[in-house]
Amino acid sequence: MRTLKLTVTYDGTDYVGWQRQDNGRSIQAVLEDALGEIEGRPVTIVGAGRTDAGVHALGQVASVELTRDIEPRTLKRALNAKLPTDIRLLDVVTVERAFHARYGARSKTYRYCLTTGAVAMPFARQYAWHVSHALDFGAMRAAGQVLCGRHDFSAFQTTGTKIDSPVRTIFTLKVEDWGGWWPWDTGDPTSQTLAVVEVVGDGFLRHMVRAIVGTLVEVGGGRRPIPDVTATLKSKRRDQAGPTAPAHGLFLVRVTYTNP
Amino acid sequence: MRTLKLTVTYDGTDYVGWQRQDNGRSIQAVLEDALGEIEGRPVTIVGAGRTDAGVHALGQVASVELTRDIEPRTLKRALNAKLPTDIRLLDVVTVERAFHARYGARSKTYRYCLTTGAVAMPFARQYAWHVSHALDFGAMRAAGQVLCGRHDFSAFQTTGTKIDSPVRTIFTLKVEDWGGWWPWDTGDPTSQTLAVVEVVGDGFLRHMVRAIVGTLVEVGGGRRPIPDVTATLKSKRRDQAGPTAPAHGLFLVRVTYTNP
Repeated sequence: MRTLKLTVTYDGTDYVGWQRQDNGRSIQAVLEDALGEIEGRPVTIVGAGRTDAGVHALGQVASVELTRDIEPRTLKRALNAKLPTDIRLLDVVTVERAFHARYGARSKTYRYCLTTGAVAMPFARQYAWHVSHALDFGAMRAAGQVLCGRHDFSAFQTTGTKIDSPVRTIFTLKVEDWGGWWPWDTGDPTSQTLAVVEVVGDGFLRHMVRAIVGTLVEVGGGRRPIPDVTATLKSKRRDQAGPTAPAHGLFLVRVTYTNP
Repeated sequence: MRTLKLTVTYDGTDYVGWQRQDNGRSIQAVLEDALGEIEGRPVTIVGAGRTDAGVHALGQVASVELTRDIEPRTLKRALNAKLPTDIRLLDVVTVERAFHARYGARSKTYRYCLTTGAVAMPFARQYAWHVSHALDFGAMRAAGQVLCGRHDFSAFQTTGTKIDSPVRTIFTLKVEDWGGWWPWDTGDPTSQTLAVVEVVGDGFLRHMVRAIVGTLVEVGGGRRPIPDVTATLKSKRRDQAGPTAPAHGLFLVRVTYTNP
């Protein structure tokens, strides 16, 4: 037996999320089925983050134990030939036996895409939350700084999941105004604009990034003053924060580990 | 009766193309049906360019004659409420009665998206042609210059359609290397790269932009020397040019008119 680390990108639009479920096709199930065909027996993979239905990944990490002796490069090519085109293996490497994609993760990076403008462009409809009003990115940046550091993020989680502690550390939170969204920017006033909220932390509670984005969009739209974000964080009450932003604007960008 | 000019964007993935046909859902039919409901009788719209199945538009232009007296702004809002999210009206204006979206067009701009890299990223799968080898953009640019100007483009058209003349003028042809494709660029070597071929001309023959791109990709991959493009153009023979690039990388960006 040896442990492999898989780096996976997927368009989450047509999936019920990462985790295998009875009610539809999941990323985990599609990957396990493809790996199982190669291994010749059912396999179980562990993902670093259980992305929700509609959430995408640019660099999800998964670990799996395999017995079959197959070159990582060959495995990557064989898997990509089997997988649907909305899931791709970016990297396959052999790692130490004890490697565990979820428990070993040291940081995760998420990106959330926002578009603004009078009309929601067709091309962004599955990859960004379209906000019809203008956004004050400076105010959103300032509010984001309030959330950086080690805090009890109870106000930004969807309850129902049992967790050890609601304390997490956000290392950085950036709000970047990309102006147009290339290659769909025509320079016309009707062109789609793109802004990205990128957040790096040691871990995230359920729906935490989306609740943060929902709150920041209220700040950006002038409906929530910046000091209110401090009060919301301190309240530890979910009903004090903004709405959970839609799943389809969210991307799991990267997961880091101490080893390897 | 008055004539309206509609500017339309659409994701062509799930359509048989612009033109109404018996074998599936077309952009024209969806727009005509939505307009017909508002007008209270069947209407016919004319598109500036008949985009093929899978081809997208950032700014297709269509003209239509309506009897119902409705504010263009109101019509735009009403149509966008009726249309599926992969088709959006960007602009609706009243124009002079004689305006005709096809015959009045003075220039058209097309963009063709190319991605390179070992793995075809899920997010680009419906919006770019993935080329697995590297591309020499400088060589593609030089070859593109050969095609600029007024020429007989018979070598770059799919025959079968009756046309008056195969002579067209290309005003500009740019090959732009965008590096990563934001917001999907992670900075990792596996990230998706994006290059865009943008061509402006007074009109294009059937599949002309795609045949040009297919030829330029051969040049960029080192399989066709630049002087060969001159010989191909002069040959006026379709079998001398490169393959027709896939439809899903192509976008009709803009159509211009002398008036308005």
